[in-house]
Amino acid sequence: MTTMTKDLYTLIQERKSVRKYDPSFKMTQTELEEILTAATTAPSSSNLQSWRFIVIQDEATKKELRAIANGQEQVETASAIIAVIGDSDMYKNVERIAAQNVAEGHMDEKQKNTMINNAMNLYPFAPVELRQNIASYDAGLISMQIMLIAKEKGYDTVPMAGFDMAKFAERFELPKHHHPIALIAIGKAAAPAHGTSRLPLKEIARFI
Amino acid sequence: MTTMTKDLYTLIQERKSVRKYDPSFKMTQTELEEILTAATTAPSSSNLQSWRFIVIQDEATKKELRAIANGQEQVETASAIIAVIGDSDMYKNVERIAAQNVAEGHMDEKQKNTMINNAMNLYPFAPVELRQNIASYDAGLISMQIMLIAKEKGYDTVPMAGFDMAKFAERFELPKHHHPIALIAIGKAAAPAHGTSRLPLKEIARFI
Repeated sequence: MTTMTKDLYTLIQERKSVRKYDPSFKMTQTELEEILTAATTAPSSSNLQSWRFIVIQDEATKKELRAIANGQEQVETASAIIAVIGDSDMYKNVERIAAQNVAEGHMDEKQKNTMINNAMNLYPFAPVELRQNIASYDAGLISMQIMLIAKEKGYDTVPMAGFDMAKFAERFELPKHHHPIALIAIGKAAAPAHGTSRLPLKEIARFI
Repeated sequence: MTTMTKDLYTLIQERKSVRKYDPSFKMTQTELEEILTAATTAPSSSNLQSWRFIVIQDEATKKELRAIANGQEQVETASAIIAVIGDSDMYKNVERIAAQNVAEGHMDEKQKNTMINNAMNLYPFAPVELRQNIASYDAGLISMQIMLIAKEKGYDTVPMAGFDMAKFAERFELPKHHHPIALIAIGKAAAPAHGTSRLPLKEIARFI
């Protein structure tokens, strides 16, 4: 491969939500795994990595999913749908993650115990709605990396929140603490995205 | 400026959460505005851009904020704190955003009306908790772009969900539909970040 790497500014400008995909183009599972693995460098609340994914390439399953995603064409024509799910019980992994930090030389035993105590004094007592919001924010962080990495590899994406989340959870038999957050269609564009406007900075930010 | 641009893979690997900042280093408001403006290329649910920001550079205000952010040092020592806020009434901007799309040549009148009707048939009837989750996801998308752009410019960041959100809302007199989501400390690193482990892909993703 002799792909030119593009700089960040080019990538963030060129990444646009694409809704028309070449239905005959199939990404490999290896490529999808590479994109997801690279994206996991994203930060997350207390490094608890609340993100979970179901990656759907099977044609019949994509067809089914289209029906619970307001019939949106790209759910069926994109090469894959990456369903982004948040685990509101993310703190239950804290001991494993902390132990892995020690094993990889990132933390000593004292820091490990501090990480575990901090998480266990906070998350189990936080309302599930707050934990869901945190998982949604973490999901957004990693989703942005997924979409930029995909663009860098020559693919296009569109994130979708417009789908029946309850039906999705039922169809894919999600446990109660797994909340569907977004579907990301990914594949080879068949038509360019249309542009979209942005609110001026002064209307969305104030400086103190 | 003769800064070398770094490729995306280098940036996503090198961006790590930094908690030690040089307290004497001050970014300019112009730099902060440039970072935020560039980051707004991020996608958002129905392009409603639910993200709002309060950027705090004032020393006394950072000190106050530290007290409502569990005393975390970086809230005071970082050059600025970018408070990321979600607007759960995001759909109230749909007419303006759609009109701007027409003015900028992205949409015709028919597409504009479709955009408005779709949003108004959906968002006002969605529970506020769902709209808050959507705003949190959108906030994550733009936050990731903010942190990557900052890194590209030679700055470091750390996103924080650990602060008293109710106290924040009170202190900064947020309207009821503005929900504090995260604080991003940004500035010049005084010490490198420690590394962090990641769960293996097979434990967070399944393929269908």
